[in-house]
Amino acid sequence: MLAARIHAKEDLRIETFAAPAPGPGEVLLRLGAGGICGSDLHYYFEGRNGSFVVREPLIPGHEASAVVEAVGAGVTRVKKGDKVLISCITSCGTCPFCKKGMYSHCEDGGWILGHLIDGTQAEYVRIPHADTSLYVLPAAADEAAMAMLSDIFPTGFECGVINGQVKPGDTVAIVGAGPIGLAALLTAQFYSPSEIVMIDPDENRLEVAKSLGATRTVKAVGEDAVRAVMTLTNNAGVDVAIEAVGVPATFDVCQGVVGPGGRIANIGVHGKSVELHLERLWSHNITLTTRLVDTVTTPMLLKLALSGRLQPLKLVTHRFRLDEAMKAYDTFGSAARERALKVVLKNA
Amino acid sequence: MLAARIHAKEDLRIETFAAPAPGPGEVLLRLGAGGICGSDLHYYFEGRNGSFVVREPLIPGHEASAVVEAVGAGVTRVKKGDKVLISCITSCGTCPFCKKGMYSHCEDGGWILGHLIDGTQAEYVRIPHADTSLYVLPAAADEAAMAMLSDIFPTGFECGVINGQVKPGDTVAIVGAGPIGLAALLTAQFYSPSEIVMIDPDENRLEVAKSLGATRTVKAVGEDAVRAVMTLTNNAGVDVAIEAVGVPATFDVCQGVVGPGGRIANIGVHGKSVELHLERLWSHNITLTTRLVDTVTTPMLLKLALSGRLQPLKLVTHRFRLDEAMKAYDTFGSAARERALKVVLKNA
Amino acid sequence: MLAARIHAKEDLRIETFAAPAPGPGEVLLRLGAGGICGSDLHYYFEGRNGSFVVREPLIPGHEASAVVEAVGAGVTRVKKGDKVLISCITSCGTCPFCKKGMYSHCEDGGWILGHLIDGTQAEYVRIPHADTSLYVLPAAADEAAMAMLSDIFPTGFECGVINGQVKPGDTVAIVGAGPIGLAALLTAQFYSPSEIVMIDPDENRLEVAKSLGATRTVKAVGEDAVRAVMTLTNNAGVDVAIEAVGVPATFDVCQGVVGPGGRIANIGVHGKSVELHLERLWSHNITLTTRLVDTVTTPMLLKLALSGRLQPLKLVTHRFRLDEAMKAYDTFGSAARERALKVVLKNA
Amino acid sequence: MLAARIHAKEDLRIETFAAPAPGPGEVLLRLGAGGICGSDLHYYFEGRNGSFVVREPLIPGHEASAVVEAVGAGVTRVKKGDKVLISCITSCGTCPFCKKGMYSHCEDGGWILGHLIDGTQAEYVRIPHADTSLYVLPAAADEAAMAMLSDIFPTGFECGVINGQVKPGDTVAIVGAGPIGLAALLTAQFYSPSEIVMIDPDENRLEVAKSLGATRTVKAVGEDAVRAVMTLTNNAGVDVAIEAVGVPATFDVCQGVVGPGGRIANIGVHGKSVELHLERLWSHNITLTTRLVDTVTTPMLLKLALSGRLQPLKLVTHRFRLDEAMKAYDTFGSAARERALKVVLKNA
Repeated sequence: MLAARIHAKEDLRIETFAAPAPGPGEVLLRLGAGGICGSDLHYYFEGRNGSFVVREPLIPGHEASAVVEAVGAGVTRVKKGDKVLISCITSCGTCPFCKKGMYSHCEDGGWILGHLIDGTQAEYVRIPHADTSLYVLPAAADEAAMAMLSDIFPTGFECGVINGQVKPGDTVAIVGAGPIGLAALLTAQFYSPSEIVMIDPDENRLEVAKSLGATRTVKAVGEDAVRAVMTLTNNAGVDVAIEAVGVPATFDVCQGVVGPGGRIANIGVHGKSVELHLERLWSHNITLTTRLVDTVTTPMLLKLALSGRLQPLKLVTHRFRLDEAMKAYDTFGSAARERALKVVLKNA
Repeated sequence: MLAARIHAKEDLRIETFAAPAPGPGEVLLRLGAGGICGSDLHYYFEGRNGSFVVREPLIPGHEASAVVEAVGAGVTRVKKGDKVLISCITSCGTCPFCKKGMYSHCEDGGWILGHLIDGTQAEYVRIPHADTSLYVLPAAADEAAMAMLSDIFPTGFECGVINGQVKPGDTVAIVGAGPIGLAALLTAQFYSPSEIVMIDPDENRLEVAKSLGATRTVKAVGEDAVRAVMTLTNNAGVDVAIEAVGVPATFDVCQGVVGPGGRIANIGVHGKSVELHLERLWSHNITLTTRLVDTVTTPMLLKLALSGRLQPLKLVTHRFRLDEAMKAYDTFGSAARERALKVVLKNA
Repeated sequence: MLAARIHAKEDLRIETFAAPAPGPGEVLLRLGAGGICGSDLHYYFEGRNGSFVVREPLIPGHEASAVVEAVGAGVTRVKKGDKVLISCITSCGTCPFCKKGMYSHCEDGGWILGHLIDGTQAEYVRIPHADTSLYVLPAAADEAAMAMLSDIFPTGFECGVINGQVKPGDTVAIVGAGPIGLAALLTAQFYSPSEIVMIDPDENRLEVAKSLGATRTVKAVGEDAVRAVMTLTNNAGVDVAIEAVGVPATFDVCQGVVGPGGRIANIGVHGKSVELHLERLWSHNITLTTRLVDTVTTPMLLKLALSGRLQPLKLVTHRFRLDEAMKAYDTFGSAARERALKVVLKNA
Repeated sequence: MLAARIHAKEDLRIETFAAPAPGPGEVLLRLGAGGICGSDLHYYFEGRNGSFVVREPLIPGHEASAVVEAVGAGVTRVKKGDKVLISCITSCGTCPFCKKGMYSHCEDGGWILGHLIDGTQAEYVRIPHADTSLYVLPAAADEAAMAMLSDIFPTGFECGVINGQVKPGDTVAIVGAGPIGLAALLTAQFYSPSEIVMIDPDENRLEVAKSLGATRTVKAVGEDAVRAVMTLTNNAGVDVAIEAVGVPATFDVCQGVVGPGGRIANIGVHGKSVELHLERLWSHNITLTTRLVDTVTTPMLLKLALSGRLQPLKLVTHRFRLDEAMKAYDTFGSAARERALKVVLKNA
């Protein structure tokens, strides 16, 4: 099998070796289409020390649709030939966390693909706990579109929209118009807010945001962004502020714009602590949430994507063959210049 | 009328002047019993600059039960002679915040007693928006017990217990065993958590906490407190961490002990910002809340107090006459040494 | 002032008399545009015994937008000249029901307009508890559109959509494509269900439903309707069944189509009891709700209507002058033949 | 192995045959202690036609604690020698219903023990989907106490208390003081209602109810019971009415006593339809729920039972050896005369 493997910081190689055999409860899948996530890129550029990866070499990737090639003992819900969606979160289905729907903290799973075990940027991938970590797709489902449901759509929706409790009539600010912020933008519209303000310094991404339903855009950062949002809301602040970047400065914008009774929903993966202004916020009745996606809403998102109500392909800007993975990483690594949102790797 | 008035930092005087007349929608009340809150003390010791007070001299106090002396035009729900509970939060009942039950942010009310207008530590007090800011009591209701329902019980309950979403079987940590922490302890039991761990450096307060239902106590601060709680919970952390002090160190204990999927409910009034460890918590699916009490649960708390299910007097340790206010402040100012929890001022 | 007054069953007269003066807390309004509700029609055709009316003659009507003509003592939130929306539910804002947002059961209000006191189908109408029962509108707001927010939109939304807990991806069945059913159809879309099946025997109304967002229509009643819905859902049944008629047969369709875990939200005004099939439903984990609208969502609906996200005029099919009220009632009384949805009465 | 087997209506035999071997995902358990449920009794007296049983002879029973004797392929969370609690509901953990926590409707499980497959009133019982249908117990856990957590406690709690949304300060009426009603009574107290009114015609059961926390008892049925409750509540009605019998008359009491905004939570297994008074209730803002227990709260109940906060043995009145099953059924069949609540069968 062909695979992209990272051996060390900035050392990604296209290699060939034998495909693994699925053990009990596992399946072996043949890649249809997969995505490159910001965390893959982060690993590639920062190396193990700056990421969550625990062994090398490792096949990165946790976003993909695929076809079942071989089925291990005890697997009952998928069979050879099924087209499936791979959840970025592996769930055993039996531990206390899984039983309460918090798959992200599964005692024998969670976010392990391309991180604790080989991931999806390969011709074949082995998936543990297959019955509870895969979703069977119609044969005709678009492979690239479906790969968008592995991670970014459930992440934008669960961590941003659901945790932010977006409600009809709400004013929502989304800080960061990258793929995750745009997934939050698209799924926030499931609840009919009256305003969605998209905040980003990149003009192109704001244009995309507008075409995807943002009612306002703010091309600014820091205090300027805060001032712009407060002006737009007549100083009332927003009902929901969604953090979709993961650095102190964007978190600060969220604290600056949230109104009394509002919610700050953090999506971003943070590398350092932030300063929380409790001296002001203690009396503002706000709710701040963090979340590693549980992918509990995947079946619902799938339903809306298959019916056309959600259009994941709107975020796909570039496609490469698996053996062009290096080029794909380079493109995504220069996302602003390349106007890249999601970069897809297709098999063969 | 007799009143305690603060003229400047550490300058509290017992003075006599004419009682005000109630305007439209207002009533004049004659004090039954009132409490001294930590924020009154803070104002007394720190002066206007360190508090929320906007004019001086000012009568402090926002906790009291009283009897209606005179009724202004348009008041329909209370009448002369009624014994009433004064909510620490004044609510107009008609603004958008009041209509959604967020009285704390009432456009013509909120926390104004003893802060923007004269408060309750006086023989008479004038209450605006009386129909929506007072609760009629049975004639036999205990005045000191009822005064505990003005602020500390709704605050402990709404900001700590409800915002912390305490559920049957939960493990709860409360950081700070002062009056507010103890009110949270008593009201957390409404939801039958399996463990309530009380954390405080003061041995006496922990003894009180035990007698009021704490299942465990931790006499420690900072990292030591975190380690003790993690040991008690087999490193699972707690479901709910309630911050009942208002300084960075106690907030840190909360972040240190909250488990995946848990809630941090802030009650404390903070004077400075805190460091929020998003580099760790971003993936822990936590919820952090802040709140200035809305007093929306006062009718329910009143029901449970009148039926004996909630016993507010358990927090009252000292009683003084109104003209002894100076002594009352001194006692509460040395709370640890005096073993003081709530200090009550009675009329006459 | 000119008014439509009902003196007895089928005895509606256009009469002239003196306008009342507003008492304390009241305002006098000059009609802009109002609607005729099914309950008005029911009263007209069935008389007092068949309705909720308690005295005659009575001016019917509880749906209207208007302009403030005179303001009684103590009113603070509206002033002469303001254009306002009249809520069909009068709320005192201070009783226990109002304090928990259940205005429908206000101890000194509730559904009283055109029922316990003179209603809105007149040149002038007096509104008690004005501060908490009216919503100020922008001067340019369309009068007929706004009148749709007095009753049918909050009713369809609160009793049908919110009580039915419509969620993204849900399958919703609405039984009855009259104005209320169509208001439920329009507002259900705030939550992005994947399917909305509209059920009605009237072809024209189903056509309208399709144009307003129904994804499927079923032209059938009773068991035929149940069979059609079960076929459409592969025998899974629906997540939400909304009853928008008020007779046993339509309620039966709801019980027949609701799937395990589903909700039946009753909107219809029922004149007799229904047979509830607990011998089947006891184990189906269903939730059945009833509700007289509270109009707590009016501010939100207003926001979406003013922003164009909700288009109330889509339900207005006929307009008459107030002095043509008799003709208006006749038209609405033959709604199917006249293809009437909402019939509006305009002042002069 | 020894087993109680029902061959036909009123034909229960104590028989001996070979124990089955566990297949993939299954375990074989050796009975510790089990209960007899009202539905077992109903089957025994009414036969297959009056119950849910689909084949005969059949071993009844779905309530028990036991010890793991043998483990089938693929089982990972329990091992030979573990003491376990058997859930009355079998859950595959992978179907759409299980994934949303609605185990009662599991596509390959649900309520199958002693109904579609042999149940627990035997020396050995085979449990499918063992990893998701059993809970490991401490070795010292009391076997009879634990058996109460298989069905009646989760049923009373989930179908009655959780569905009834019991809240601090609420007034709760429970109609029927049998084991299920008493389980609802005990678990309702987790949420600190201010009043729990127990309604039953049996004096002994009401005495038990009082000793278990009922604040009021009503020894009456039908209209008399309704009148008594309305008097107790000053005609306000109750916040929550829990139906714990399963016949039209007791359901009628619930509709008669529920106040505006209240909830009716049905627990009873109904054999026929009921008359629902929508002509009155349509405007009362009530919520009516039905539910076959999902046993999602079993881990929480277990935690509270193991800590002593919940005391399941309070419901156990009689104990028999397995070979005395006939006598046990007779005792439970004359529950009123025998003052029987839960009747337990112990192995050997």
